[in-house]
Order: sequence, then C-alpha cells, then structure tokens
Amino acid sequence: MTDFFGDIAPIRYEGPDSRNEFAFRHYDADAVIAGKTMREHLRFAVAYWHSFAWEGGDPFGGRTFDRPWYPQDTMEAMRVKADAAFEMFRILGAPYFCWHDLDVRPEGASFAESRDRLFEWVDYVQPKMKETGVKCLWGTANMFTHKRFMSGAATNPDPDVFAYAAATVKSCIDATHRLGGENYVLWGGREGYETLLNTDMGRERQHYGRFLQMVVEYAKKIGFAGTILIEPKPQEPSKHQYDYDVGTIYGFLKDFGLEGEVKLNIEQGHAILAGHSFEHELHLARQLGILGSIDMNRNDYQSGWDTDQFPNNVPEVALAYYEILKNGGLGTGGTNFDAKVRRQSIDPEDLILSHVGGMDVCAAGLKAAAAMLKDGELEKALTERYAGWDGEAAKTMLSGDLEQAAARVEAENLDPQPRSGRQERLENLVNRYVG
Amino acid sequence: MTDFFGDIAPIRYEGPDSRNEFAFRHYDADAVIAGKTMREHLRFAVAYWHSFAWEGGDPFGGRTFDRPWYPQDTMEAMRVKADAAFEMFRILGAPYFCWHDLDVRPEGASFAESRDRLFEWVDYVQPKMKETGVKCLWGTANMFTHKRFMSGAATNPDPDVFAYAAATVKSCIDATHRLGGENYVLWGGREGYETLLNTDMGRERQHYGRFLQMVVEYAKKIGFAGTILIEPKPQEPSKHQYDYDVGTIYGFLKDFGLEGEVKLNIEQGHAILAGHSFEHELHLARQLGILGSIDMNRNDYQSGWDTDQFPNNVPEVALAYYEILKNGGLGTGGTNFDAKVRRQSIDPEDLILSHVGGMDVCAAGLKAAAAMLKDGELEKALTERYAGWDGEAAKTMLSGDLEQAAARVEAENLDPQPRSGRQERLENLVNRYVG
Amino acid sequence: MTDFFGDIAPIRYEGPDSRNEFAFRHYDADAVIAGKTMREHLRFAVAYWHSFAWEGGDPFGGRTFDRPWYPQDTMEAMRVKADAAFEMFRILGAPYFCWHDLDVRPEGASFAESRDRLFEWVDYVQPKMKETGVKCLWGTANMFTHKRFMSGAATNPDPDVFAYAAATVKSCIDATHRLGGENYVLWGGREGYETLLNTDMGRERQHYGRFLQMVVEYAKKIGFAGTILIEPKPQEPSKHQYDYDVGTIYGFLKDFGLEGEVKLNIEQGHAILAGHSFEHELHLARQLGILGSIDMNRNDYQSGWDTDQFPNNVPEVALAYYEILKNGGLGTGGTNFDAKVRRQSIDPEDLILSHVGGMDVCAAGLKAAAAMLKDGELEKALTERYAGWDGEAAKTMLSGDLEQAAARVEAENLDPQPRSGRQERLENLVNRYVG
Amino acid sequence: MTDFFGDIAPIRYEGPDSRNEFAFRHYDADAVIAGKTMREHLRFAVAYWHSFAWEGGDPFGGRTFDRPWYPQDTMEAMRVKADAAFEMFRILGAPYFCWHDLDVRPEGASFAESRDRLFEWVDYVQPKMKETGVKCLWGTANMFTHKRFMSGAATNPDPDVFAYAAATVKSCIDATHRLGGENYVLWGGREGYETLLNTDMGRERQHYGRFLQMVVEYAKKIGFAGTILIEPKPQEPSKHQYDYDVGTIYGFLKDFGLEGEVKLNIEQGHAILAGHSFEHELHLARQLGILGSIDMNRNDYQSGWDTDQFPNNVPEVALAYYEILKNGGLGTGGTNFDAKVRRQSIDPEDLILSHVGGMDVCAAGLKAAAAMLKDGELEKALTERYAGWDGEAAKTMLSGDLEQAAARVEAENLDPQPRSGRQERLENLVNRYVG
Ligand SMILES: [Co+2]
Ligand SMILES: [Co+2]
Ligand SMILES: [Co+2]
Ligand SMILES: [Co+2]
Ligand SMILES: [Co+2]
Ligand SMILES: [Co+2]
Ligand SMILES: [Co+2]
Ligand SMILES: [Co+2]
Repeated sequence: MTDFFGDIAPIRYEGPDSRNEFAFRHYDADAVIAGKTMREHLRFAVAYWHSFAWEGGDPFGGRTFDRPWYPQDTMEAMRVKADAAFEMFRILGAPYFCWHDLDVRPEGASFAESRDRLFEWVDYVQPKMKETGVKCLWGTANMFTHKRFMSGAATNPDPDVFAYAAATVKSCIDATHRLGGENYVLWGGREGYETLLNTDMGRERQHYGRFLQMVVEYAKKIGFAGTILIEPKPQEPSKHQYDYDVGTIYGFLKDFGLEGEVKLNIEQGHAILAGHSFEHELHLARQLGILGSIDMNRNDYQSGWDTDQFPNNVPEVALAYYEILKNGGLGTGGTNFDAKVRRQSIDPEDLILSHVGGMDVCAAGLKAAAAMLKDGELEKALTERYAGWDGEAAKTMLSGDLEQAAARVEAENLDPQPRSGRQERLENLVNRYVG
Repeated sequence: MTDFFGDIAPIRYEGPDSRNEFAFRHYDADAVIAGKTMREHLRFAVAYWHSFAWEGGDPFGGRTFDRPWYPQDTMEAMRVKADAAFEMFRILGAPYFCWHDLDVRPEGASFAESRDRLFEWVDYVQPKMKETGVKCLWGTANMFTHKRFMSGAATNPDPDVFAYAAATVKSCIDATHRLGGENYVLWGGREGYETLLNTDMGRERQHYGRFLQMVVEYAKKIGFAGTILIEPKPQEPSKHQYDYDVGTIYGFLKDFGLEGEVKLNIEQGHAILAGHSFEHELHLARQLGILGSIDMNRNDYQSGWDTDQFPNNVPEVALAYYEILKNGGLGTGGTNFDAKVRRQSIDPEDLILSHVGGMDVCAAGLKAAAAMLKDGELEKALTERYAGWDGEAAKTMLSGDLEQAAARVEAENLDPQPRSGRQERLENLVNRYVG
Repeated sequence: MTDFFGDIAPIRYEGPDSRNEFAFRHYDADAVIAGKTMREHLRFAVAYWHSFAWEGGDPFGGRTFDRPWYPQDTMEAMRVKADAAFEMFRILGAPYFCWHDLDVRPEGASFAESRDRLFEWVDYVQPKMKETGVKCLWGTANMFTHKRFMSGAATNPDPDVFAYAAATVKSCIDATHRLGGENYVLWGGREGYETLLNTDMGRERQHYGRFLQMVVEYAKKIGFAGTILIEPKPQEPSKHQYDYDVGTIYGFLKDFGLEGEVKLNIEQGHAILAGHSFEHELHLARQLGILGSIDMNRNDYQSGWDTDQFPNNVPEVALAYYEILKNGGLGTGGTNFDAKVRRQSIDPEDLILSHVGGMDVCAAGLKAAAAMLKDGELEKALTERYAGWDGEAAKTMLSGDLEQAAARVEAENLDPQPRSGRQERLENLVNRYVG
Repeated sequence: MTDFFGDIAPIRYEGPDSRNEFAFRHYDADAVIAGKTMREHLRFAVAYWHSFAWEGGDPFGGRTFDRPWYPQDTMEAMRVKADAAFEMFRILGAPYFCWHDLDVRPEGASFAESRDRLFEWVDYVQPKMKETGVKCLWGTANMFTHKRFMSGAATNPDPDVFAYAAATVKSCIDATHRLGGENYVLWGGREGYETLLNTDMGRERQHYGRFLQMVVEYAKKIGFAGTILIEPKPQEPSKHQYDYDVGTIYGFLKDFGLEGEVKLNIEQGHAILAGHSFEHELHLARQLGILGSIDMNRNDYQSGWDTDQFPNNVPEVALAYYEILKNGGLGTGGTNFDAKVRRQSIDPEDLILSHVGGMDVCAAGLKAAAAMLKDGELEKALTERYAGWDGEAAKTMLSGDLEQAAARVEAENLDPQPRSGRQERLENLVNRYVG
C-alpha cells in the first residue's frame, strides 16, 4: 500500500457535537432510518477522476497537485494510483467507486492496447475490491478528452469515430460487467455542437439515438443486469449538449423507444447550469419514472461553468433526498461525488476531508428528509391542495370533452376563488427540520 | 376612425438609401424572393396586447402611456381601441394581427358576459377586416392575468379552474374560428409552479396533457382548420413553466400522442431565457417536425426577464429566417411581433416606427437568408462535413450492432483523425451576407 | 384597531422544538448573545410597501390580495392601512418599520398636497409609535413609480424633474426626521438607463453626485442625526443602474467627496443580481467602511428579476451576520425585510408567518455566526494564512519599490511553494455551526 | 522562415463584393476616414497566446492542434514559434502584437533563467520587428498559470509571491520597454478569491493597490512612456476578481491615487461576463477619463465562461467604435484580438481566416460608426434631450441647495411631463448604418 495518506485513520462516526474534523458528525453508516441503514440509503461513491486523475488545472492554470502517481502515463502509475484510491475508499468507508477508462489507465498506442490496459486495471483492482468490500457503482467511457472526439463521439460527422466510440463503450461495459458494476453511465460532453453553422442536429440526433439502442442491446446480450444511465448537462464543454436536461432527454428516449430501458444520473451542478433546481430535476425524473442515480456535487450558483464542488448546504441536500425517498430510493443507483477539491486544496488531507464533509452533509440532509416524510405534514398539505381532483366530478371532467367542461361553467355560473399557496408557511415547515 | 395617429401616411418602401424614418428600406411587400413575395414569406402580424392593451407599467412603475381608449373597462373603449388598432395595421401594411380575449374587451361580471363581449368584439372587427384585408394570424386566451388563474389554468389544483380554462379556451377558439384565424395559440404562463413544496408535477402534467388533447379534439370537431400552437417559455411569471423549451415540449407532446397535432410558436426572447439561441430552437423544432410560427421579439441578453423588444440585429434575424426557409416556410404560421415599445416611448409615432424598424430588420434578414441559401455555400459545407455518413459502410454500421462496429475498429486498427470544424470561416461566410 | 389579523396573538419564543407555527423557535428578543440582546443585534424592520401597499400584481397578472384598505387612493384608506400595519408590528414584536411616501398615503393633485398628506400620515402614526414603542428605521422617497420619473429622478434629462425629486426627498427627510427615523435611504431604480443611445452617462452622473451632496447638506442643516444610505442594485427596472454594486458606488462616493458621509443599505437579492454573494458585498462594504444597513431578502438564484423573498437558508444568513458582527454591528442600521409574500400567499396569516419565518432564520443565523466568532477557529485560520505579512520584511517590502522587491527574488533565489487554501475544511468548519 | 502557413499570400483589400475568403472586404488599411487611415484608427494587434501558445485544450479535453513548435519547452521551439508568429503578422498586415512572458518562451529553472530567456526572445524578435515593421502594442506578465500564483500574485497571502510577482512584472516591463511597446497591461486573473472563508479582502486590496503604485513608479523611473493598463474581468478563473469592471476599478484607482496614471484595457467578453454591454464599459471609461485600449473578442452571451471568440457582429462592433471615436481614439492603445479559434479549428488557414474575419468586422463597424458620427443625427438627438440642462436656471439649481430646488416646485406648482425616450427610433437610426 501507498503511504500517501500518512497515518490518517478510518473515519468514524462521533455524533453532532464532535469537534474532530476527521470524524463524521451525521453519517452513521449502520444507523437505521426509514427502514434501511444510512449506508443502504446513501450508497456513497467516490469518483476516480476528480480525486485521482485531475491534476489541479483550470483554463488559466496548470497542475497544482503533487502526487506519487504523476506522470500518469505508465502502467506502474496506474497501480500506484489504484493503491492510493483504495486506501482513500477504506479511510472514508465509502462503499462504492466510479470510473472512466481514461482515469484508471493511460491510453495505449492502439485501441486494442488501450482496451487491454483497461482490463489489466480490472485485474489489478478486483482483489482490492474483494479485500475491502468496496464495489463499483458505475463505469463509463471518457469520450471527450482525446482530440478524436473533439467533434463528438456517437454524433461525430466521421462514421469512424462512431465506430471508435462503439468499441470504447463496449470495452467499458465489459469492464464494468467484470467488476460487478451496478450501473453503466453515458455522459455526452461532446455530443452537442460549438456552432449550428456546421451542424445537422437532425442527423446527429438519429445517430445518437441509434448508438444508445445498440448500447442497451449489447448490455442485455452479455447479461449485464445493471442500469444504463444518461447524465444530463446543458452545455460546457459544448455550446449546446443534446442531453440538456431531464425534460429534453425524456423526449429523446421516447423517440427511440428507450424510456423503459434507460434512466438518468442527475447532477446537482448540471441541474443548476440548466436553470433548474436539483429537486426539480429529481422530481420530474421521478414522475417520469426515469430517476436512476445522482451526482451529488453542487455548482456555484454564480459561476457559469461546471464547478463540481462538494455539497455544503444541508437545506438544499435535504430537499434532494426528500425526492429520492419519495422515489423509493435509487434502486441500483447511488450518491456519487462527481466533485473535486479546489485546485488550491493541495494536501492529501483536503481529499479526505472534502469527502467527509460531503458525506456528512448528505447524511444530515437524509435525516432531515426522512423526518419530514415521517411526520407527513408536507405531504398532507399537498394532498389537501389537490383534494378537489380526487372527486368523481373532476374525474368525469377529465374523461369528458372541452364542451362539457365549458358547459358546467355556465350552468353553475362558476367563479372559482383562489386559495393561498402557503409557500412561506411550507418553507418555515421545512426549516423545522433543517434550520 | 380615430385620429390617434394624426396624419401619418401608410408606410411605403423607398429602398436602402432612404433617410425617411417613415419608410421601409428593406420591406418591399410585393417583391419576390425565393419564389414568393416578401409579404408571403414574412406574414407579419401585430400583437394587440403590447401595442393597445399594455399601459406602460413595469414591476416598479405605473402607466406611462396616455391613450384615447383609457380606461379600458368599457365596451366603448373596446371600439375606440379597435379603431386605432386597425388604423395602425393599415398604416403599417401589416397583413395580420394576433390577440388575447383580455386585450380586446374588458371582462364581464360572469363568464357568459365575458364570452358575449368577446363575440361583440368579433362582430365589431369583422367589417374592418373585410375592409382593410387584414387577417387574424392567431387568437389566444389570457389565462394568466386574473387572480383565478394565479395557481395555474389547466394545471390549477382546483378542478373548477380547469373547467373555467376549458370554457375560456373554447370561447377563444370559437372567436378565432369566426375570424378565420389561421392558428390558435396556447401560452401557459401560469402552467408551472412557484415552489415545488406545494406542487405535484406529475398530476399537473397529466391534467395539462389531457387539457391539450381536449383542445385539439374540439378544434377538429368544429372544423377549425388552423394549427394549434404551444409557445415555449422557461420561466416568468412562474419560477418554472412546463412549456420550458422545444426539447421539453416535444417529450410532453409525445407522451400525450400530440406530436402530429400540435406545433410550436417560438419566441426569440423565450429561447434566450431558456439558454438557447433562437436559431437553435427553430432548428430543433424543424428537425422534429413541429416548427409552426414565430414571435419575433428579442430579449436583452443580459436582462433576466422577458423584455419583448423589437428585433434590431440583422445578422441574428438572418439566421432565424435561414432555418425557416429550410423548413419550407411557416405554413399557416407567421412573424408575430410580440414586442412592446419601451415604456418611455410614449408617442404614437413610437408605436408606428418600432414596427417599421422591426419589419425592416426582418426583411433585411430574410433577404440575406435567401441569398445564403441560394448561393449554397453553407449547405455545401454541411453536406461535405457529413459525407462519410452517406456511404454504405456507415449505413451498415447503423443497422448493425455494437460488437460489429467495435470489431471493425480492431480489424482496421482505426485511428480517426480530426478535421477542422471551420467555425470562423463559416462565420465569415455568413458575414458576406449580413456584414 | 382593525380586525384584519383576527385573533392572532403576539408571537412568542418557544424554543427550537416548538411545533407551533405561530411561535419563534430561534428569535428570543431579550436573550443576550455576544454582549447584546438579539433585539439589539438584529434590529428587525417591516417594510410598509411589500406588506401593505403591494397588491399581488406581477408583469403578467393583476391584484390577488383583498385588503380592507383597498382601493388605496383615499386618506381614509391611509388610516385603515396604518392601523393594520401597526397591528402587524405588534403581533410580530418588530421594533422598526420602513416606508416610502407612496406606500403610506396616496399622491395629491399637486406636490404641496402630496407633501401635506405625507405629514398627515406622520401625525397619524406618531401616537401609534409612542403607544407600541415601534420606531422608524428609515424612510425613503418613491421616485420610480410615477411616470414623471420614467427617465430618472436626479438623472432625468429634464431639470424640472430634478427639482421635483429634490422637493420629494426634502419632504421625505423631513418626515423621517419628525418620526425620529434613524436613517434615510435612497434607491435609484430609475437612476440608470434603458438604452445608451439616448443617454449621456457623464452628465447624468454629475447631476446624481450633486443631488446626493445636496441631500447630505440638507440633512445636516436640519440636524438629522441619522445615516444617509444608498441601496445598490445592478438593473431592473432599468437596463443598467448607476448604483450597480458596492464597488461601483464606492468610486462614485469618492468622486463626490461623500465616502465619509454616506453608507450603504445592502440587499441580499440585489447582491445576487449583480453576480455577487451577499457576504461578498457585506465584506467589501465593511472593509471600505461603508456598511450601513441590510435588506434581508433573498433572490431566487435562477430568476433574473428581483424576487424579494423572505430568507429561508440559515447557512447563507449565518455568513451575512458573521460579516456584520465583524463590522461591530450595523450602528444605526438594521435588518429590514424588503420582502414580499408570494402573490399566491393571499391570507393574512401568510403575512404574519412569512415574517416569523424570516425573523427566525435570521436569529438562527445570528446565533451560529456569534458562536463561530466566539470559538474563533475561522478567524485563527485567516490570521495564520496571512501571518507572513505581519513580519518586518513584508512591511519593508511594501514601503519599498519594485526593484528592491525584485532584487530579493534573485538574491535569495526565491521559489515560493503553494500552501493549501483549505476551502473544504473551512466549509466543513462552518457546517459545524449551521449543519 | 517556417512554411507553416504554406503559400498563403498576404491578405489584400478587395472590396465588399469580393468572394475571396483570403481577402479583406472592409479593411482597407490606407483608406482615410474621419481624418485618419483605418490602420491608424484600428491599430490591430495579434495576441501571441491564443494563436501560438494555446494548444486547443479546454476543461474537458486536451490538445487538438498540431504545430511545429510543440512541445513548447525549449528555446528552439521559442524560435520556431516566433518565426511562425511573424509570418502570420506579415500575412495579415497586422501592425502590432501583444504577449505574455509565458507565451513567448518556456520558464527556466530559476527566476533569473526565466528572465534571461525572456530577453533572449526579445533579442530574437527585434530584428524581425525591424524587418517587418510590426510593433509591440503591449506586453504583460502571466501570473496565473504557474502554481506559485494559485492563490494570487500581488494579493497572495505569502509575501514571497508578492516579491516574485514584482520581479516578474519588472522583467516584463523591461522587455516591453526594450521592444518599444506602447503600453503595459496587467490582468489579475488570480487577484481575487475562491472563497471568502479564507480571504481578507481589505488586506489583499491594500497589497494590490501598493503593487500597482510600485509598477507605475518603476515605469516612470525607467522612462517607459507607454500607458499602464488594467484589464477588468469579473470572475474566472477566480470566483471573484478584484478588477471586476470599469466602475469597480475606478474606485480602486481613486483610493490609491492612480486614476490619472492608469487606464483600462477593456475586453468585450469580460464586459459581458460582468453583466454589461461592451459599449457601456467603453462609455463609462470614456466619461471617467480612463479608456485606454480594447480587447476585441466577444463572449458567447449564453456561455458563462470566457469564450474569447473573434467578433462577428457588425452592429455591436459599430457601437463600440462609436464610443472610441467620441473618445478621440485610443491614444497609445489599440484593437487587440484576445481571441482564439475554436479548438476544432485546427488548420493553419483557420488561424489566418479568423483574424481576417475579425479585422473585417472591425473595419465595417468603424466605417459605420464614423458615418453615424459624421451625419450627427444621434448626437443631435442627445443634445436635444438634455437641452434643458444648458439653461441658466438649471445651472443655478445645481449650484444651489435642496431647499431652493424644492421651493421652486411649489412656487411654480411644477408638474413635469414626460417626453418620449424614442429608443426604437434611435435603434432604427443606427440600423441605417449597419442594417
Ligand atoms: Co459537473
Ligand atoms: Co456528473
Ligand atoms: Co416574451
Ligand atoms: Co410570445
Ligand atoms: Co429587491
Ligand atoms: Co431593497
Ligand atoms: Co477573455
Ligand atoms: Co483580454
């Protein structure tokens, strides 16, 4: 094992009054709320990329971190990095991890070599997974960093790139399957455009839809029992991305007959960039039956790029888990931290403590959400507000036609009076649990 | 007739070098380009509401205008207003107008009286339409101003409001039908929410979908041959509106089997508020087969509310008409100015000249777009970029499976090389036509 | 007294576990923290305008509220409204209120009548203030609603409007002085522009600066001992407002020699609209010595217009009060709720409970801020981070020149190494107090 | 010389009807308008960094370009790159270039070596400048890429970094001076913060102000006759940058007595990111006497990060040059393209043609602006709008006090009536020149 994290001991739960920054104040993995342990509810996953592959660069600056696995271009570095990663999983008590092919191993000189290296990494980590009990929440393919994908992967104007993307996804599903991964994710950062002037959205959308069908068919064929997930994001790196938000993807899935096959991995930060609250996207996906998993990393509300920060606002997080609890949980999905420490947070402790803080914020949010749901006042208010629709007359109206509905207005000289929406009272109610 | 506009004579085309602000420099209604007159291409419509019903208020200020038809709460005012409106249509040579029920007549004490007043207005303007040749592009119901709709119309938690909305839309379709209107529009400013805490999106979405089905069925029943249109907008007045953007509405229409029945009325300003360029929304709607009509009013890019300004940027407008020309035109749709003069533009001349400027900008944009399409360089670049997909191998790949595509990568040791996207060259090309 | 609020009893503190929505869970007015009672720290004020003058309209809808003082155009309505207002102050236990002239009385037929009516209101409420102990935090003039101000007040192109604005402000300062108001506020919603095409910012800025000097001189002359405050806002209703944000106003005050005479009333919502966090604006104003008072109402982060909502996020509010505590409090300033209930919140209870919730969120934030400051870990981290600057060498460098500083780099072959910024650890630390 | 650009011949002016993409349609360098040649008005500069140092990476992707001077870490690469750069300057007929130290040469192992390498580059390009006549518009120091600057340069919590920054700027001013540069620019991408939790803005602001004073003093001492310029930007890479916008910097300069010593280099894209139009920032800087130079690169209005695109909208650019003409030109400043080709624009032709398009858009804008100013209608409308302020009564009022102004309102029973702001008419007027 590496000694990268020095003598940092596994993080333990010490309760809300603890002043030990290396302890959980809320996340008590084995504590049971709403019928399951917190571990089972939250299903935390650490992302390989931000914590182990990203070197601290931004559009105006280069590497700030200094890690034993740099430079990352050898298979020996692959192993040193994997050792450190599993050490961090162990310290955190994180039950899952997530990965892209490019995070875990350097590309080879040919596709075949790249694929072989990926499987070599699989071989390397499988014993570690067994030993630590850490599992793979999902795998995914990085089809946005290499210049071959600069104009898209499945939506590239060059069919050879589509083929390359197919090969890449196949290898990543294969690897995910071998690792017992519980989901497979697609995020299409380059599936979009920089300028409409050189883009045929109709054609690209057809290719993208067909690609996704092929992915679903292949996963079935090999017996991959996990969920196929798409992650929405409106823009960045592209000017516009096809997977804009939940509403947009829903129409896309319907068009290709995939609304029963594919679910969504929803990221708080991407919801915000699309002009939505996180709970909006979760609520909508829940109602449409396509809520799959979450990336629990916030975006700065005022920075127009993807900041991928750890969550730190319990009231916001509570509303997210409230939707998840109403969804009956996330099924095979989980809570992935697609979050990176700031590039000035250069110490190994920063890596650990950012996750500790994020896990604790989620745990606090979950507890609040569970209490809200159990007490039931919010649900009761909702039920009462729509009670009129539970009556027979309303049901009859819905199954009737426009003239019938209109006729009643005149027959009864209807003059419906507004009732208070009580927004502030409901906000106060929520604050009982998080304030 | 009113003398509100004094002695302003009908606006004539005088050509690009005219310095007469009461003349068109680009809009030559009878001039033929791309096989149709400019009048037929552009199908300009004036909106009753902004020009005749809005009094110059904003969230921080009251009425600034002074019009002979104020206060607008009598049926006599209805007539004075209609007289002025038709005088303006005549001065502008605008072939169409659009209206909400609440723009054209005051509400009555009951629904029946409101409806009767609407028909009284219909009776009043029909002779004017005949006399002037001005036609109705579309009618619509204002279901957002009155407090009964404060929590939604079709999506209201109170079924009686749904009924009231049904009656209202029925009366407005009836009026549109009587006026020979070529489309009927729905804009759901209150079909959304202020807070998720009191909202069941699933339930509201079902009611909304059913409502739309009922509208479509009724229009068919009465033999209304026009197009039913929905107008997307992401937010304002609501925190979130269900008709967010083209992509979102597409999924909604699919869910209720309406994608072949309903098209979209796309507003430049709403596209911008949703984070899209206008041409993006037009392009997407075109590709999805649901482009119906446009509201040609821009939003300030940096004001986060609906500014509904007249278009004034020819390069932007040219890209919009380029999409429309590629769509084969707008069918029954047209170019509506859902635009208002600034509240400081208090003179009658401002009303006229804002429209003159807007019409001229559209005409200039149309000419540029037609020339671009005719010269064909932009289309040629597009065709070349995707040429690879026209080959048999690409088609075979699309009808094959993931493994077959992947197998070729290894068999041929594919290493696809990027080709320039040429964005700046294409931008330069466009500037040949508009710069 | 009016019976508008029915039998709602004065709100009492019941502690964090109370489930009574008509009680405070955090605001215990007489409880002492950090050396002062919560009442003295927070200095809560209710705004006359949002709660008593606004009728529930928005850009797309009209009045939704139904109040005994409607229509508001008589002096009898002035009295009914004032009765209800003081009843609410009493119920809430709010020590202060704030007002515009237009909120409290209808305009008269001439300036003189308008001014006399204002003083009549002063006479009417003075006994109430004495009786209830409720005081005036600040008064201000509404110079944005009437059409005479549509192109600005002090910055109007018409000098007569400048004069009218001068008369208006004079009357409002006089009234504030008579009421014993502790501050006087200027907010220049129309001191900006809609389009640069008709605007001479240089000239308008000079007029605005001179106007402010005249205001300061007059306040001194009459012995008004309160603070003169400007409230920043970047835009809305204007496209651009001269009082954009703290940084901009600072330069403006310096230009007119007013940086020692005028302080700022900073609104959370306006900070957000300007692209800043609230704590940023407070921190900057504190460092520049111009932090005066706060408007504690949030803006929806994703709505581009002024939503003026009650605060509901304790972690955010805590960071604001942390800055205020570091400022040594707000002096004559206070915590004004420039907040309105949503237009669907139509019941009298909504008015009360929105304030109760807002007051409680502020109280919880204050408690957290005081505890953070007392424990001192955040301050300690800050001190350590800048410790290098406390040494003699650093001070010498600052008083030296560029060459001397540069020479040391070579002489010592300096290669400064980065130290972690520890952002996540500090965020975790803050969450100990609010999470 | 390199043959990187193949046989691309110098770009010539061919007039508006040219269809040769390798020709100017508007930029006729020697043509005289408004008393100067276009070359003298526009003073175009090419930026070394975007065109020669940036490799096509973005936050989600790596290098896409392939250049003969890669990898850029040797002094031989410095020469190959400089050869290509000067070849491009010659092809474009660009009279100026701009640079950062890090663009032109690789860093050395010590500060001294870095500085020596910079001077070696100076020695290398001086003969080229003499030969081609291409001059240095400005130089600047890159104090944001290296990790030593991750927490700021002059505002770093570590005084040693301040010293390093001083040495760096000294070396860059020295180099600029040797090259005969006409300005020296500072852009403080890291002079800001990521989180207020670890930041003392007061202290950092003092250090920053002192640093700027030291720079000004040093420039004077060595006889550098050029202008010292600061470039505003609100955020990115930092969450908040101290040089937010023109208004903010003005207050900062006043605080440190530098408003007569330092001017601004204003970038269109940064204006937009700060919520302002470009013409707003230019107008304000003009009125404050601190307009120095421009970075003529646009930001996508809907991408919240710095997109640094070439200008392509003539109407917008015309309004910018209108302000510049009213400023009497830019003095020692110029029109720098701080613009990069999109990362998919990988061909050498893209580099050339993006600049050709940008130069042509600027030339077209300049021509329109000059014609507008010459015709004088826009200015005339402005003069008339403010005419009231030219009278004696208005001047007397401004030099009087609040009571005097107020007294006149009552004495004359003033009731000022609004006059139309004529926004749309003025927009139409502008469109005569650009539409
Ligand atoms: Co993200
Ligand atoms: Co993600
Ligand atoms: Co609109
Ligand atoms: Co519209
Ligand atoms: Co506000
Ligand atoms: Co306020
Ligand atoms: Co930039
Ligand atoms: Co720049």
